[in-house]
Amino acid sequence: MFGFNYYTPTKVVFGKDTELKVADLIREFGGTKVLIHYGGGSVIRSGLMQRVTDTLDGAGIQYVMLGGAVPNPHLGLVYEGIELCRKEGIDFLLAVGGGSAIDSAKAIGYGVTNEGDVWDFYDRKRDVQACLPLGVILTLAATGSEMSDSSVITKEEGLVKRGYSSDHGRPKFAIMNPELTMTLPDYQTACGCTDIMMHTMERYFTNGGNMEITDSMAEGLLRTVKTNAQILAKDPKNYDARAEVMWAGSLAHNGLTGCGNDGGDWMTHMLEHEMGGLYDVAHGAGLAAIWGSWARYVYKNCLPRFKRYAINVMGVEPAGTDEEIALKGIEAMEDFYRSINMPTNMRELGISPTEEELKDMAHKCSVSVGGASGSARVLNEEDMLAIYRASM
Amino acid sequence: MFGFNYYTPTKVVFGKDTELKVADLIREFGGTKVLIHYGGGSVIRSGLMQRVTDTLDGAGIQYVMLGGAVPNPHLGLVYEGIELCRKEGIDFLLAVGGGSAIDSAKAIGYGVTNEGDVWDFYDRKRDVQACLPLGVILTLAATGSEMSDSSVITKEEGLVKRGYSSDHGRPKFAIMNPELTMTLPDYQTACGCTDIMMHTMERYFTNGGNMEITDSMAEGLLRTVKTNAQILAKDPKNYDARAEVMWAGSLAHNGLTGCGNDGGDWMTHMLEHEMGGLYDVAHGAGLAAIWGSWARYVYKNCLPRFKRYAINVMGVEPAGTDEEIALKGIEAMEDFYRSINMPTNMRELGISPTEEELKDMAHKCSVSVGGASGSARVLNEEDMLAIYRASM
Repeated sequence: MFGFNYYTPTKVVFGKDTELKVADLIREFGGTKVLIHYGGGSVIRSGLMQRVTDTLDGAGIQYVMLGGAVPNPHLGLVYEGIELCRKEGIDFLLAVGGGSAIDSAKAIGYGVTNEGDVWDFYDRKRDVQACLPLGVILTLAATGSEMSDSSVITKEEGLVKRGYSSDHGRPKFAIMNPELTMTLPDYQTACGCTDIMMHTMERYFTNGGNMEITDSMAEGLLRTVKTNAQILAKDPKNYDARAEVMWAGSLAHNGLTGCGNDGGDWMTHMLEHEMGGLYDVAHGAGLAAIWGSWARYVYKNCLPRFKRYAINVMGVEPAGTDEEIALKGIEAMEDFYRSINMPTNMRELGISPTEEELKDMAHKCSVSVGGASGSARVLNEEDMLAIYRASM
Repeated sequence: MFGFNYYTPTKVVFGKDTELKVADLIREFGGTKVLIHYGGGSVIRSGLMQRVTDTLDGAGIQYVMLGGAVPNPHLGLVYEGIELCRKEGIDFLLAVGGGSAIDSAKAIGYGVTNEGDVWDFYDRKRDVQACLPLGVILTLAATGSEMSDSSVITKEEGLVKRGYSSDHGRPKFAIMNPELTMTLPDYQTACGCTDIMMHTMERYFTNGGNMEITDSMAEGLLRTVKTNAQILAKDPKNYDARAEVMWAGSLAHNGLTGCGNDGGDWMTHMLEHEMGGLYDVAHGAGLAAIWGSWARYVYKNCLPRFKRYAINVMGVEPAGTDEEIALKGIEAMEDFYRSINMPTNMRELGISPTEEELKDMAHKCSVSVGGASGSARVLNEEDMLAIYRASM
């Protein structure tokens, strides 16, 4: 068991119509002039933005708008947001959307309150000393950015995608109304559920320092998302299922499900990042496509955890050898992915990299983790290539 | 399913030797002159206080000391602390101890930063607008006050015990070193484990609005405390078991295990409060003594939850009628209490109120909840008396 820090200062306001509390919350955290940052037009078409601006108008809170945050949000828009904030004297950021809008807003907040180029932080050259206060109205359950310390930004030049984590970036409040996620396409809902589960699975499959209370809560979270992802695949307007998944998304990545462990494995995420760098694939679908190959490659090195996962999360009968139970758990997880129309290999994901491309991805992945990484099993470049090949 | 607010801003620093980070944490939250508030001499005899003051001395942070916080902390000492803080120009409170020292410090913090008599807040006459920033070094896992919004203070005149809850009272940081709890008497450890479980059980046994992710995490927490309480009854120096229980204590009462429900039942706590008002009983032991009688009185009105508890927490085989399963769960819980030397009725607790005293307790209890209360089953004064009688 390891020591840990746990810090989740975000005030969560969860339930129907909670977006109408946005003005009160902005006031509570000292905001007087707000940049509303969002992605595409869906938050406008749905009428959400109108409700938000009506509420701000009613409270006499000034605002300016900046849309256009895309999945894998771009550095160019971040620069634009920083300039806009300075020009307009903005003292509060409101992200309306999913992880893209929130991550982009975090980067804008770093840029406004710190000297120099904001890319320096993502490029690991310096650390932030502050962030503009940030609030969130969440419309997509997936990345957990609404309570997490992390954000991922892509520099257009060379498509360099980098993450940065700082407690300064944790939102002041997160408004979560499950109804706002009901109109998502099924594919995006399933990708979100996959991402949520993977945030906790990356912490769960380790060889070091696990804590029973953390494990048992993680297993409860994973069972809940699994069940409710399948409900949503058939009944996307189910409020309770939307709520279970939405709250799970925040808890899966705010640190709770990693307390006491060695920091987690995270190689499924790293392997997927390179697939996402080469092809335009949805992050959640990419994770589902590579996980099975990763799991089969590493499970013998982390057998107690894979056995426990099979029994406690996937409901596998505890009969047979540990290896047999672990393998049944992996198969059951792949069956689950198929049940929500997620891919279990690259072909089902719709990509077919050449052998040269696979080698290039494995090389880039190994460089990005400093040569080798992993806790369930330490993977070097050769291992990464083997996993990519097995996922074809 | 109900909407909810979730707000746990406390920075948790968990693990061995974490008390040595106290000066850095006080600085991080702006403290320059500190009131160190504690209970009896155990934190001095153990050498903890010397390590703390050495750390503050090394960092050049000034401090004054105020000991004497007792279980059911007294209003008189709170007044003394408020006066001391004003006289010394204190800008930060550091509670070193368990719930008594922390609750007393919260009241001092309210008194220093708000006009008028601090008892007004506990007497429900006014609400606080602020609190002095407060940090905690925890030495006893039980009340969860290190992350919670609540505190309980007793006015000596008439022994009036009142709780007050405000987000302003949530500590800025909580230092949790499980080693600091290793020298507790076995009885106090068992009382703490009982209190921790009950904080989550009060939220769990409801008839309204439960959320699956909350329930499944609550069950994981309860199983973990149950297992580790039994380990500690035999091996009190077991670090991992101390750590599991300590972290569970914070999560059991910071709001996490109630998200999405109707607010919980809380009648076991209310019934115990009156026992604690009449007799000098440890809170945890009092809860254990009354719980079984409460459970047998209400379980038929909340059968799905009692059945689920029996199977998922107590490991009862799901065979027989729902009532049979629920009753086996209650019996198993009482067996658990006995296994850690907790009482299961008032006789085992060592008290034997007269019929008149029982009637008086039931009357006071019904008044304190405004006539009738409860979610598993709504209890009026007559019901309360019946439960007290059954616990004799």
